[in-house]
Amino acid sequence: MNYQGYDQYIDHHCSDSIDELSILCAQPSISATQEGLEECALLLGEMLKKRGFLVEIAPTSGAPVVFAECKGKNTGKTLLFYNHYDVQPAEPLALWHTPPFTPTLIDGKLYGRGVDDDKGNIVSRLFALDAILDQDGELPCNVKFIIEGEEEVSSPYLHEFIEQYQDRIQADACVWECGGVDDDGVPMQALGLRGILYLELSVKTANRDIHSGIGGSIFQNAAWRLTWALSAVKGVDEKVNIPGFYDDILSPTDEDLFYLKKMADPSEKYKALFDLKDYLHYVESGVEDIRVAAVFRPTCTIDGINSGYQGPGSKTIIPAEASAKLEFRLVPDMDPEKIMISLRKYLDELGFTDVEIKELGSGKAAKTPVSDPFVQMVVDSTKELYGSAMQIVPMIGGSGPNAIIQDALKLPIVMAGVGYDGAQVHSPNENLVIDLYLKGTKHIVRILKEFSEMD
Amino acid sequence: MNYQGYDQYIDHHCSDSIDELSILCAQPSISATQEGLEECALLLGEMLKKRGFLVEIAPTSGAPVVFAECKGKNTGKTLLFYNHYDVQPAEPLALWHTPPFTPTLIDGKLYGRGVDDDKGNIVSRLFALDAILDQDGELPCNVKFIIEGEEEVSSPYLHEFIEQYQDRIQADACVWECGGVDDDGVPMQALGLRGILYLELSVKTANRDIHSGIGGSIFQNAAWRLTWALSAVKGVDEKVNIPGFYDDILSPTDEDLFYLKKMADPSEKYKALFDLKDYLHYVESGVEDIRVAAVFRPTCTIDGINSGYQGPGSKTIIPAEASAKLEFRLVPDMDPEKIMISLRKYLDELGFTDVEIKELGSGKAAKTPVSDPFVQMVVDSTKELYGSAMQIVPMIGGSGPNAIIQDALKLPIVMAGVGYDGAQVHSPNENLVIDLYLKGTKHIVRILKEFSEMD
Repeated sequence: MNYQGYDQYIDHHCSDSIDELSILCAQPSISATQEGLEECALLLGEMLKKRGFLVEIAPTSGAPVVFAECKGKNTGKTLLFYNHYDVQPAEPLALWHTPPFTPTLIDGKLYGRGVDDDKGNIVSRLFALDAILDQDGELPCNVKFIIEGEEEVSSPYLHEFIEQYQDRIQADACVWECGGVDDDGVPMQALGLRGILYLELSVKTANRDIHSGIGGSIFQNAAWRLTWALSAVKGVDEKVNIPGFYDDILSPTDEDLFYLKKMADPSEKYKALFDLKDYLHYVESGVEDIRVAAVFRPTCTIDGINSGYQGPGSKTIIPAEASAKLEFRLVPDMDPEKIMISLRKYLDELGFTDVEIKELGSGKAAKTPVSDPFVQMVVDSTKELYGSAMQIVPMIGGSGPNAIIQDALKLPIVMAGVGYDGAQVHSPNENLVIDLYLKGTKHIVRILKEFSEMD
Repeated sequence: MNYQGYDQYIDHHCSDSIDELSILCAQPSISATQEGLEECALLLGEMLKKRGFLVEIAPTSGAPVVFAECKGKNTGKTLLFYNHYDVQPAEPLALWHTPPFTPTLIDGKLYGRGVDDDKGNIVSRLFALDAILDQDGELPCNVKFIIEGEEEVSSPYLHEFIEQYQDRIQADACVWECGGVDDDGVPMQALGLRGILYLELSVKTANRDIHSGIGGSIFQNAAWRLTWALSAVKGVDEKVNIPGFYDDILSPTDEDLFYLKKMADPSEKYKALFDLKDYLHYVESGVEDIRVAAVFRPTCTIDGINSGYQGPGSKTIIPAEASAKLEFRLVPDMDPEKIMISLRKYLDELGFTDVEIKELGSGKAAKTPVSDPFVQMVVDSTKELYGSAMQIVPMIGGSGPNAIIQDALKLPIVMAGVGYDGAQVHSPNENLVIDLYLKGTKHIVRILKEFSEMD
């Protein structure tokens, strides 16, 4: 296919699209603080309507979901875009070089909160539609958007929308919210995300901290109770002791292992970057490949512990309260609900009935097979644009709500987007490289056009 | 003996003594922040000189020690007072009803930082000397004062003074810095203090927190390393696993047990006060008497743990750093230095070479035998004053530098003072009951007079 007309449109209308992106980014939409979510959803709805989409601002128990659909030429095929209009908080503000909600163009980069994650990707998709509408007068296939407002806080209510709109959101394939190039400019295709179960464990043993001289040998100590409960969950051998924890794990396929081992070994890079002494024993000993262990091993991570006195010097108290953030990253087909139940039962059986467990977020892992024809099309369609096919990453360590979509719709999910390693997403000075914005947009054009012509 | 003249002097000069105490308390002397220590030492020196004492402001690596001595009638006998002129910080200031460094008399109580601990006790001793000097024209025996300036921060440099002044501080008996009455107004005689070893354990696994999605299954996690190291030190059975930890423990004597079991059982009181569900297993099961376990069992207490994210909601990180305050209360004859060495060796052998140990304070336990004649004299000398002999407490759970004095001077140490349960020492609204101040001062007169006449 010849994409010259589409590409020229994109090149010529770049500044219009960046203006539109700037308008969207100037509207704060912070799910952590719930600032500006409705306003942003409405603004986005208007942008979609301008392209001829039928838009619904669907309420949930949390932020509304923007659902939009538009019929195209080949009505037998439907492509779904999953995105999110919420952003991370801008804090710490002092570290920004430009105002986070006043997008600012400097030396070929646009700076601002959300210029990549995920408003940059949203407007890039709209820009790709504009190019196609300009050249073809219509979309090549049916297009749907699900743009949620709480991705940055673990999509707690997305399932409500999915259940309610089950019939209307059906599609044949899905383009996920993000994507981009690696250090060398090679576009990456991540086909799977791990699941997550994020918990807070807490213990309260008294109504106040007590002088340790009085009670150290007679009173319960919340910090000790928590320490022992945590140690019971995972030991120094890194084995999670919750009964049944490893039962439902699907091994990576030969294809998964093949593609993972094609990737560069990051061992030396990480050691230098984070000043590490060693890796966990199965990696350090070479028993497991670091690239495989990093994504196909479930984790049990303490993200934080808080108890008692933490200031300088000494304070002699028995802490009355202790809490820890405990996070599990799950691989296919682990079930967070089942693990939660097993953990409660396990702690109870060990006598840790005093340890309360609160769920702060959960979701299953999901992945799309490398061999899926839609994946192959998307991967190959970057060749002339980026100078190479996409590098396939069968699974990444992070998590997202892809399982919610995939379980409901049973479709392949690919990633495509405008990001790069230096984009500073979630951090101060989030930025978008205009050149990558144009390339990412052109890639979306190719995906739409070629998808609509697939058998 | 007839104490009428001394007692009348004390009753008649009460407001002069409270004025002097107020002057001393108006001079902040906060060892935690090192505010006003020199000034307070000099002020105190002047107060002692006025009573005919030879005073030296002895420098140490920390705050100076005020050493004072005065010859008395019976020069064959010397009584030593150990006190401290430093106070705890006044914070939180908002909770004080009167300015902490402006002592204020309200309804028979003097409010202010240090009015009890320990300036109230210091000036009460001076007041007792005044009464004797007024009535007898001279002291009944040699009197020495060691008044240090860093008791509230674990007396880190007192040993320097003791070593240097070894010859000049010799005495036959010592009155410790504090004392007072219980809930029922019965004066208490605590004869022993536990030792302490206060440590900070810390682990650093990387130069920054790392995204848990990237590294949860390949990177070391400082919070886990610390959790496991702590669990290795003491398990859920409450047994400390450091080799040799229990080797040097002296069992309480029959006398110790007799007096401890004469005390009221505090189980129900503590449960109600602190809203406790249960005690540690050996107390809850009745295997150990709560009064004995509370003071004659060494402890291993986590006073605080700090690692990673502790705010609301979830943050997905592998903490690069973790630290814990770990405190041991020691019974006779445990040696903090030996335990420190064993702990290091033990952690190393288990592979926890990454866990750093920093000592924040240490000292041995020490106690004076109940049967010591000096103890018996002090205990009996409250009878007509308080309506009962002192209640003997062979050992209390808290700690202090008494072992430093006792190891150097080999003398009995008793407690006597002006405190009560509601004195709020170390807290906002520290206060002194004037009536108890007068009684405590009269008790000191009796101790001085009767000590000088002992065989």
